[in-house]
Amino acid sequence: MRTLFHYPLCPFSRKVRLVLGEKKLDVSLENEPIWKKREEFLDLNPAGQVPVLIDDYQGHPFCLSESQAILDYLEEAYPETALLPKNIQERAEIRRLCHYVDGKFYQDVTKKVVYEKTLKRLMGEGGPDSKSLREGTLNLLPYLDYFSWTLEKHHWLGSETLSFADLTLAAHLSCLDYMGNVPWEKYPEIKEWYMRLKSRPSFQALLSDTIAGIVLSPTYRDLDF
Amino acid sequence: MRTLFHYPLCPFSRKVRLVLGEKKLDVSLENEPIWKKREEFLDLNPAGQVPVLIDDYQGHPFCLSESQAILDYLEEAYPETALLPKNIQERAEIRRLCHYVDGKFYQDVTKKVVYEKTLKRLMGEGGPDSKSLREGTLNLLPYLDYFSWTLEKHHWLGSETLSFADLTLAAHLSCLDYMGNVPWEKYPEIKEWYMRLKSRPSFQALLSDTIAGIVLSPTYRDLDF
Repeated sequence: MRTLFHYPLCPFSRKVRLVLGEKKLDVSLENEPIWKKREEFLDLNPAGQVPVLIDDYQGHPFCLSESQAILDYLEEAYPETALLPKNIQERAEIRRLCHYVDGKFYQDVTKKVVYEKTLKRLMGEGGPDSKSLREGTLNLLPYLDYFSWTLEKHHWLGSETLSFADLTLAAHLSCLDYMGNVPWEKYPEIKEWYMRLKSRPSFQALLSDTIAGIVLSPTYRDLDF
Repeated sequence: MRTLFHYPLCPFSRKVRLVLGEKKLDVSLENEPIWKKREEFLDLNPAGQVPVLIDDYQGHPFCLSESQAILDYLEEAYPETALLPKNIQERAEIRRLCHYVDGKFYQDVTKKVVYEKTLKRLMGEGGPDSKSLREGTLNLLPYLDYFSWTLEKHHWLGSETLSFADLTLAAHLSCLDYMGNVPWEKYPEIKEWYMRLKSRPSFQALLSDTIAGIVLSPTYRDLDF
């Protein structure tokens, strides 16, 4: 059986869950308390981070980590539902968007808001810092402008077909939305795109996540928000 | 003509230069002062970061950014000199190592030492912080233990053939080595591996880099250091 070690409000875990869902690959979820630095878990991933996927590929159980490496593996091992375009230049653009979101967007926004309010204290790095929360909330806006502009050009993010880029951005925004941190009304292109994603079967498991001690935004679960 | 916008002591730019070198793809280098946030450059990459590659693929000039996306593109567009193994599981392991080095290793080590001593001031974030330099120097050691252990199992990092993983780690270590920050003598497996890489033609351009205001380690250019 396939197993994913994850943390519910980790955007990198969520993107793997979404991709597994789109590819209709069953998975058993294990909530990993990464702050405990369990030795058995560090043996699976020396970085000590989620997600970690144990996949049974052609009869060989196999351990994977680093979310984008997991996505590339899933695309190569299970190509039936393609989540990268065929054209080489379009593939590069989709991968650029994934790295942009997981890298700069994460550092500027998701980490400053979501990590700050969730894992930071558990990791022994103190309580949430209000300056960081303010910065993250402000930093989000120019990114939403950029993604709106991008969505005007194609039906999905950077492409005419659903891809890793959509699922990566949606994973990050879903964490921010859990806490009510996305001003959807000001960004109609993004809201419409997110509504399309939110109604997909792959998204449903994310919408039923609950995290002790974190107040859930009242519209997080509404498909018509 | 192919053009790479880079910064000499940027590990992400260096890894793309090494891959272009291994694939014997000529490139014209443009030193980009990213701290100036030139509008023409932001049009090429909204993240404002190097590397940015302009490639002429089958007669279509094409702009790429995010170093790992550039590597995957180069592997797909120019597969003659393969830098990813054929086996799906081995590919995933090589990609994991790349992300591990560019992600956690960069945050824990390269950023705390190299960024702190070079770009930080230019980016308007103040002078180098001695606490960060100390942390980065200390953090390097357990990583070198881990990579030594990895190199005992295969001829190259995570594989029997040279791959993206070697070039990624070498790119980061070469920046640290420029400043004399790698205790090679304590890590003979890593030193032997790095000597093999350093003598490859792809490495020579990196060894002739000079950066104003940064003292060059006396052994940086020695092939027998």
